[in-house]
Amino acid sequence: MSGIEAVVFDFYGTLVDVAAVARACRRVAPDPDAFIALWRAKQIEYTFLTTAMGAYRTFWDLTGRALDYALCNARLSPSPDQRKRLMNAWLQPVLYPDTVEALARMGPGRRLAILSNGNPRMLSAGLRHVGLPNRFDAVLSADAVRRFKPAPEVYRLATDELGLPADRILFVSSNGFDVVGSKRFGLRVCWVNRRGAVLDPLGPKPDLVVSTLEELADRVSAASG
Amino acid sequence: MSGIEAVVFDFYGTLVDVAAVARACRRVAPDPDAFIALWRAKQIEYTFLTTAMGAYRTFWDLTGRALDYALCNARLSPSPDQRKRLMNAWLQPVLYPDTVEALARMGPGRRLAILSNGNPRMLSAGLRHVGLPNRFDAVLSADAVRRFKPAPEVYRLATDELGLPADRILFVSSNGFDVVGSKRFGLRVCWVNRRGAVLDPLGPKPDLVVSTLEELADRVSAASG
Repeated sequence: MSGIEAVVFDFYGTLVDVAAVARACRRVAPDPDAFIALWRAKQIEYTFLTTAMGAYRTFWDLTGRALDYALCNARLSPSPDQRKRLMNAWLQPVLYPDTVEALARMGPGRRLAILSNGNPRMLSAGLRHVGLPNRFDAVLSADAVRRFKPAPEVYRLATDELGLPADRILFVSSNGFDVVGSKRFGLRVCWVNRRGAVLDPLGPKPDLVVSTLEELADRVSAASG
Repeated sequence: MSGIEAVVFDFYGTLVDVAAVARACRRVAPDPDAFIALWRAKQIEYTFLTTAMGAYRTFWDLTGRALDYALCNARLSPSPDQRKRLMNAWLQPVLYPDTVEALARMGPGRRLAILSNGNPRMLSAGLRHVGLPNRFDAVLSADAVRRFKPAPEVYRLATDELGLPADRILFVSSNGFDVVGSKRFGLRVCWVNRRGAVLDPLGPKPDLVVSTLEELADRVSAASG
């Protein structure tokens, strides 16, 4: 992990947990685990589909459409207020317990940034909610290129905006498809694999696999020590 | 449904069932339903991911990679012979009970074609296996444009190869993403919704929704009668 000048993080599921979404689902769905699993699967599928079709819509818009699919599938008809609470839960993420300290340990001498599928409004609301509105040198959204990860144009935002070659940037994500796409683009990549998942066998392996951000901070700070 | 000069079908799940895959899974997986669900979900996800990344691999190749993911996830290590049997099950589809008669009823005065994500080797093996090697005027594969549905370039194969405007072609698929992509491209579209699924709310609705191919044949032949 030597020669890293910037660490760029995925947001949802990597730096922050969206537990508020699960809580909100418990209030409306008889089987909340299945409900949220379908909602999130469709949310991600819709980013892939709109990218393949060249028919961009914002992550917020697709999150709402995926919710409508999950509601219809479960034959649920929430009130407008209930639906709004489900959606707004995406604006209320919480930090993983080790996020703040890991950022502090990786930060010195390196720029820190976010690169997310979330559109700017979602990201700024989320960052305010977790108390880190100004923690990052750059907050980059797939919205700028109107397509989603793992399209290479999204990862190019990192090299373009930070003005660094791909091998000077460490990209950190918990999502398999994001690891595959970023590695294929040429970034150095860390997979935060909190739950012992299997990596999609679609391309080159990540440079580093950790189970916590703390472990990532150990590896990055050891390299610069 | 008037003015239709060609009917173009998706293959797997639309004209043919891949029940042999489920049977093969039952021989190796303790929880075959979960195993095949994950295998097929990853197979489809990998078509989306490679299309978004611009990193094409054939449907056969991705089917194998999706199998490896599912095997690894279930901690299964089949013998090379067992793995080969799992893969070869994709080459042994069976016709839905109403496929042959529906084709016969829609055929007169219209060209019939297939447009599938399957690569040519898979499609020709499957068509031989179901006894319809020469039934179609065209067998079109996404392989020709090295990306998968719902990329518009795949649907353009139908208009280009048949030499017809999009509104003279009825495209028939059981897959929600295929319905969304083909409709967005501009084809006339029939969704074969055998199981009462929810349509992905991502674009214009299909022109027709049926629960069997027989029902589709009724609608198409009534329009020409």
